[in-house]
Amino acid sequence: MNIYDVSNKAGVSIATVSRVMNGNPNVSDATRKKVLTVMQELGYTPNIFARGLGLNTMQTIGIMCTDSSDMYLANAVYYTEHELRSHGYDSILCCTGDNLENKKQSLNLLLSKRVDALILVGSKFLEAKHKDNAYIFSAAEKVPIMLINGYLEGENIYCTICDDYRAVYQITHALLSSGRKKLLYLYTSNSYSGLQKKNGFLSALRDYHILPDEQFLQICPKGIYEAKEIVASLYQQGYTFDGVVTSDDFLAVGALKYALEHHILVPKELSIVGYNNSILATCAEPELTSIDTKVEALCVNTVNSLMRIFEGNDVPACTTISANIIYRMTTELNPL
Amino acid sequence: MNIYDVSNKAGVSIATVSRVMNGNPNVSDATRKKVLTVMQELGYTPNIFARGLGLNTMQTIGIMCTDSSDMYLANAVYYTEHELRSHGYDSILCCTGDNLENKKQSLNLLLSKRVDALILVGSKFLEAKHKDNAYIFSAAEKVPIMLINGYLEGENIYCTICDDYRAVYQITHALLSSGRKKLLYLYTSNSYSGLQKKNGFLSALRDYHILPDEQFLQICPKGIYEAKEIVASLYQQGYTFDGVVTSDDFLAVGALKYALEHHILVPKELSIVGYNNSILATCAEPELTSIDTKVEALCVNTVNSLMRIFEGNDVPACTTISANIIYRMTTELNPL
Repeated sequence: MNIYDVSNKAGVSIATVSRVMNGNPNVSDATRKKVLTVMQELGYTPNIFARGLGLNTMQTIGIMCTDSSDMYLANAVYYTEHELRSHGYDSILCCTGDNLENKKQSLNLLLSKRVDALILVGSKFLEAKHKDNAYIFSAAEKVPIMLINGYLEGENIYCTICDDYRAVYQITHALLSSGRKKLLYLYTSNSYSGLQKKNGFLSALRDYHILPDEQFLQICPKGIYEAKEIVASLYQQGYTFDGVVTSDDFLAVGALKYALEHHILVPKELSIVGYNNSILATCAEPELTSIDTKVEALCVNTVNSLMRIFEGNDVPACTTISANIIYRMTTELNPL
Repeated sequence: MNIYDVSNKAGVSIATVSRVMNGNPNVSDATRKKVLTVMQELGYTPNIFARGLGLNTMQTIGIMCTDSSDMYLANAVYYTEHELRSHGYDSILCCTGDNLENKKQSLNLLLSKRVDALILVGSKFLEAKHKDNAYIFSAAEKVPIMLINGYLEGENIYCTICDDYRAVYQITHALLSSGRKKLLYLYTSNSYSGLQKKNGFLSALRDYHILPDEQFLQICPKGIYEAKEIVASLYQQGYTFDGVVTSDDFLAVGALKYALEHHILVPKELSIVGYNNSILATCAEPELTSIDTKVEALCVNTVNSLMRIFEGNDVPACTTISANIIYRMTTELNPL
């Protein structure tokens, strides 16, 4: 018997049971009474003792990510696992792929292993259709759901996100204010985080009364060659640019390779901006201006929030962390 | 009760119990009789039925890697997880770091979760001192231990390795036979795989009666800037080279950046060879000649061997897979 049984029988969330156990005042008297009655009926030993005895909890957190070979996600998994371990928690990782049925199956598998919480890494778990997220809401009835750089509103769901909107808005604004006029935006996905970035780009354009040509917003597979091909095909159609903003360093490297091959001077004639500040940004020649999305800070905050939830504390449903623009050789911008 | 109990009580390995269960002839009559007696005493239902009922096995494999944010290891974990899933197995991943005590602790943790086997990814689990590997040998008494690109001899230990020695030997040989005379070797580690690569380099030099200067073998942290610094300091000391062979693309990119900055023509004046054929090889400008170490094939072979072990078949203790040299713009070599 464990905290899940108490939560189920009392018909309240795990967080509420935790709050009662920890004497947190943000619980109504009626709820507190109900929970304490159930705990007594079930003969439940509170967590803090149980943990020491290894009785009521697996001390294991389920981590889900869509693709562990993706550099951003692999780093996030690494930092999350590390931080969990420093708090004495083990983790079980499931890599789900992008298929919704596989995501559901992995989530159920982790729940069947009695994990204490689920951490969803990246925003690719949130489906466009609200009803397709039902599996997340129903899991949240059992354990806390922590989203790293994804946003979903619901009971027992907690998000830590990077301010992708603001980061792309700022760099686009900086390019426009330095005199750039024709910006291309290359992006990989319309995930939550993907949409935030695209909106940041469009919003900065709007401030400068620029109506974006549809051709100047191009979705692209996450590959250097694929991005290079798309840029090549735009130039072949007669379009020209003086700046390329991207949602991923891969795409920026592709644009850079096209420019080098066609003797377009970077950054003089063409500014290029990456995203994620990955190893590609420093591997590229010249090195890429890119956005540091603070992956480690996101993961540390997520785990710390989870520990606070376990202790019965209130935790904000959504925490936002600012990104940092890292200026390098593919832009002529200087930090203010 | 499960196969471990049978194996313990009969005093034989899991593999032997499996062989008996599957009617494999490579078991002595005495052993077969002992195992069958124990199975009867314990009322043990063989695996193949038990699995369907979810009784005797967790259907879970423990995966250990030293660092999931390392690109090579992250890819290997990805392919391994994927392949296990396609066989209906879940996996629990532990990232151990390089500390021996942490490695032992992670291994014990996975065993305590009753995993059916352990897969150790990369050669960083094998310690220089034989006695420090005792924890692996003792785990092998309980479950099969699968090593991906690491080599250790022992009962119930199975290795799938890439022929790193031959790959570095071949590319070094090709450089020397094309007229290069002063080769620098940059490497990151003296792990099993690291030593194989270094020996391949030295062996090719020996074929050409070249005695390597100690300064021409440099160990280096796995970073672009770090490698660039080491190359810079060698040039500052008056050493010159016409080729750089490396144990990792990171180091090759560092050497390349030094050359570009100092107007050394690549590949005309300096050939540069990477290793692992990572995304860095195609991101670099010019793109790197590198070694494809067939990570996916290694992982698929490891999982297939494991499935065969579970079925009670004999599996070779060590399988070697050849690497591929991928010729790009940093060498003037052509494939034969």
